[in-house]
Amino acid sequence: MKVIVDFCITPLGVETSLTPYIVECQLILIDMGLSHQLHAYGTNIEGEWEVVMEAVKRCHVRLHEMGAPRLSSQLKIGTRSDREQTKTIADKVEHVRAHLAKQAP
Amino acid sequence: MKVIVDFCITPLGVETSLTPYIVECQLILIDMGLSHQLHAYGTNIEGEWEVVMEAVKRCHVRLHEMGAPRLSSQLKIGTRSDREQTKTIADKVEHVRAHLAKQAP
Amino acid sequence: MKVIVDFCITPLGVETSLTPYIVECQLILIDMGLSHQLHAYGTNIEGEWEVVMEAVKRCHVRLHEMGAPRLSSQLKIGTRSDREQTKTIADKVEHVRAHLAKQAP
Amino acid sequence: MKVIVDFCITPLGVETSLTPYIVECQLILIDMGLSHQLHAYGTNIEGEWEVVMEAVKRCHVRLHEMGAPRLSSQLKIGTRSDREQTKTIADKVEHVRAHLAKQAP
Repeated sequence: MKVIVDFCITPLGVETSLTPYIVECQLILIDMGLSHQLHAYGTNIEGEWEVVMEAVKRCHVRLHEMGAPRLSSQLKIGTRSDREQTKTIADKVEHVRAHLAKQAP
Repeated sequence: MKVIVDFCITPLGVETSLTPYIVECQLILIDMGLSHQLHAYGTNIEGEWEVVMEAVKRCHVRLHEMGAPRLSSQLKIGTRSDREQTKTIADKVEHVRAHLAKQAP
Repeated sequence: MKVIVDFCITPLGVETSLTPYIVECQLILIDMGLSHQLHAYGTNIEGEWEVVMEAVKRCHVRLHEMGAPRLSSQLKIGTRSDREQTKTIADKVEHVRAHLAKQAP
Repeated sequence: MKVIVDFCITPLGVETSLTPYIVECQLILIDMGLSHQLHAYGTNIEGEWEVVMEAVKRCHVRLHEMGAPRLSSQLKIGTRSDREQTKTIADKVEHVRAHLAKQAP
């Protein structure tokens, strides 16, 4: 089952800057060869359910190893059965933009 | 790794009442013997990472089988490494209530 | 416009225990007379859009005053136009439980 | 109070394609002159608390007018008091990318 996920992980009980933790998660996604796109409040990830969920788990394990005593993640998970999840992350954004271009003044 | 999760699944492209879908997910949680607590905008679930995530996946698979062409889930995932996740769902609520009782007029 | 909301606020850059912050938000909800229900990963709140959103804002302002340098909230917002949002937080949970009782073994 | 928000609105009880609804929300953001960035699972928005929340409300009102009987939104809200929220949506992504560039092989 293919999924498109939006993933945002929040370490608690650490200093205010979260950059080192976010960078570490990006490296895990790169290392696993997962298609992903960082935005200002999380990261879109696409792939097979098990692989994407394994990535999320590795991020939790890794951030605890880095010293975060407590983690809270927010995940949105999209699946569909009506047709292949053929639209990629980029396609989805492009699709809305194309429709928007017809209507925006 | 123990997790406390908040899970809310939304079927798209179906009728307005979501009750049959929510009931089905509750049955999956009961069947898997997972400790859980329904609230008005989702369900708290606690257990081992793999078991809880397997439950979430089974809900997606089952709701697609029931005819939902498209699903979007929201998941919050809490883990900690500073001490055993000994506090249960009920403990967490009780803990806040006890502190609140001391302060509320 | 009536809303049912699920609200979870996370202070960043503070110690690991979030209890004092959660208690403070509960006091704000009580003070504003908003119907609400705490669960293990957030709080359900119901009321008029403006009042509920004002409560959320007051929580952000108050937690910054308490010393949290950075806050991240998760909010789910439910509205409907097909009928009055007559179902309360308690009704919604009861409704699923009643259906579940018929089907659970 | 400045906020960075991630906003994802889900109409229930409508057909499977959500594009017309997403487009409509983008038009509201453009019309209000709010800085925003669409991604594959929501939209980042930045601005003053009241203005951003007014935009979210207008999206709910407009989508009900378009015929959606029921709506469920997910919102993440980030605020900070330690320094001006000077980092824009673009800055935040760029900041992580710059750190990543130093570490990725």
